[in-house]
Amino acid sequence: MTLQLQSFMKSNIPLVEKHMDDLVKIITAPEILKESMLYSLNAGGKRVRPLFVLAVMDHFNVKDDAAYTVGAVIEMIHTYSLIHDDLPSMDNDDYRRGKLTNHKVFGEAFATLAGDALNTLAFGILARMQHVDAEKRLELINLLSIAAGAEGMVGGQILDIQGEEKQLTLEELEKVHINKTGAILRFSIEAGAILANATADERSILAEYAHHIGLCFQIQDDILDVVGTTEQLGKTAGKDVASDKSTYPALLTIDGANKKLQQHFRLAIEALDKLPSDSILLKEFAEYIVHRNK
Amino acid sequence: MTLQLQSFMKSNIPLVEKHMDDLVKIITAPEILKESMLYSLNAGGKRVRPLFVLAVMDHFNVKDDAAYTVGAVIEMIHTYSLIHDDLPSMDNDDYRRGKLTNHKVFGEAFATLAGDALNTLAFGILARMQHVDAEKRLELINLLSIAAGAEGMVGGQILDIQGEEKQLTLEELEKVHINKTGAILRFSIEAGAILANATADERSILAEYAHHIGLCFQIQDDILDVVGTTEQLGKTAGKDVASDKSTYPALLTIDGANKKLQQHFRLAIEALDKLPSDSILLKEFAEYIVHRNK
Repeated sequence: MTLQLQSFMKSNIPLVEKHMDDLVKIITAPEILKESMLYSLNAGGKRVRPLFVLAVMDHFNVKDDAAYTVGAVIEMIHTYSLIHDDLPSMDNDDYRRGKLTNHKVFGEAFATLAGDALNTLAFGILARMQHVDAEKRLELINLLSIAAGAEGMVGGQILDIQGEEKQLTLEELEKVHINKTGAILRFSIEAGAILANATADERSILAEYAHHIGLCFQIQDDILDVVGTTEQLGKTAGKDVASDKSTYPALLTIDGANKKLQQHFRLAIEALDKLPSDSILLKEFAEYIVHRNK
Repeated sequence: MTLQLQSFMKSNIPLVEKHMDDLVKIITAPEILKESMLYSLNAGGKRVRPLFVLAVMDHFNVKDDAAYTVGAVIEMIHTYSLIHDDLPSMDNDDYRRGKLTNHKVFGEAFATLAGDALNTLAFGILARMQHVDAEKRLELINLLSIAAGAEGMVGGQILDIQGEEKQLTLEELEKVHINKTGAILRFSIEAGAILANATADERSILAEYAHHIGLCFQIQDDILDVVGTTEQLGKTAGKDVASDKSTYPALLTIDGANKKLQQHFRLAIEALDKLPSDSILLKEFAEYIVHRNK
C-alpha cells in the first residue's frame, strides 16, 4: 500500500467509526439493543465502503462532513447484512473478523433485531442530513434502497443461497456477486459522486470503475478463501472448498481467477483514465482491493 | 360496525392491496424472493394501519393517491415485522392469519431475507413518491425510521422478549406496547395528517388519539388471546396464558383489562372532540378497534 493511501485510511477510518458510534449512541432505545448494534459495528473490518465515498469526494476536492455520515450509514447496512448472513439459518458462522458473531453473543432473536434496527436506522439518518439538499437526500435514499434490497444485496443473497444447491456458470456466479457485494460498493462510489456534484458523465465513468472494482473485490475474496488462513482472515478459511461452493477459483482454477482479477483491475483503471482529472487515490484504492490479504 | 365504516373498508382495502402488489411486482428481483414477499403481504389481515392513513385523509377531505402508497409501505413494514417475529428464534409460530407462516413455506433463510427486503423497499418507495413535496417525503421517511426502528417497533420487540423472563409492572407493559405496536399505529395517523396538510395543533390532537387507540388495540389483542378461539383469530389462541406472559388480563384480570380498554377509548374520543370539525369515521374506527373479535 502506498503512503498516500495509508495516510488517507489512517486519518479517515477513525472518523467514520466515530460517526457510526455517535449515530447509534444518540438514539433512545433499550441498552441491550444498542450494545448489540455497536458490538457488530465496532467489530473492525476494512471500512472499504465508507472509504470509497471519501476517496471519490477527495478526487473532486470536495470536503463535506456528510460524506462521513453517508459512509457510516453504508457501513450500518453492510453490518446488518453480515449479522443476518451469519445466523444459523443462513451461513451459521461463529466468528467474524476474529470475534464471536452477534448471535453467539446476544442470541439469535436479538441478533435478528439488531440487524433490523441498523437497516431501518440507516434510512432515517439519510433523511435527517439537514444541510444536504432535500433532492440529494431523496436520491441517496432511493439508490440505497435499491442497492441494499431485493434488487441488489438481498436479491444477491437469495441467488447465492440458491447457488449452493448447484454448479453455477461463470455468468451466474457474476450475477450473484454484482448483486450481493457489488451493489453496495457501487452505491458507495455513486454516493460520493452525488455529494461531490459530479456530472452525469463523471458519474457514468465512476459507475464503470465501481462495477469492475466490485468484481475484483469478490474474486480476491474467493481467492483468499483458498490461499488465506483463518487467523489472517478473521473468519473460517477454506469454507468455500469444504462446502463445494461455486467460486471463481472453483470455476477457473486459482490461475484463471487471478487472470480474471487482473482483467477487471485493468478495466477499472481504464475507466478512471477517462475522468477529466487524474485520480491517483482511486487507482491506489483499486490496487489495494486487488492485493489485500484479508 | 357501522355501514359507513364498512363501506369505507370495503372500498379501500382492495386498493391498498393492489398498491402493495404492484409495488412488489414491479421490482427486478429473484422470483422466489418476490413470491415470498407477496405471500406474506397477501396473507390477509385487517389492514388497520393503511386504513388509518386513509381515515385521517378522509377527515380532512383530502384525496391523494399517495395515501395508498404510504399505506402500502406501512403494511410492508408491519408484514416484515410479523415475518421476523414468527421465526423459530423469536415467537416460533407456525400459523399467522390462518395460513402457514413465511418460514414454514419458504424456509428460515428466505423468510429472514424477505423481511429484510420489505423493510428496505418501504423506504425506497417513500423516496420515489414524485408528486409529493420533497420535504414531506423526507419527513415521512424520518418518522417511519424512528417508528419502525430501535426507538419504536424493534425496540418494543426487544422489551417484549426481555419481559418474557419476568413479571412486568403495568407501566413496563405499557412501555412495551407503546413501542411494539403503538409506534407504527401512531405513524399511520401522523402520515395521514402530514399528507393532508394538518396544522400543528391538529397533528398534536391526532397524536393523542393515536396514543390511546394504540393502547386500545393492544389491550383488545390481549383480551382476545384469552377469550378468542384459534379459528376465530387465525393464530394460536391462549398462547399468552400458556407461556405465563405479562398481559393486561394477567395483570388486571379480564374485567380490569376491559375497564382499562374503555378508559383509553374515552380518552381517544375526547381527543377527537377537540378537532375543529366532526370526525365520525375516526370515532367509528375507534369503536371498531375496541369491539373487534379478531
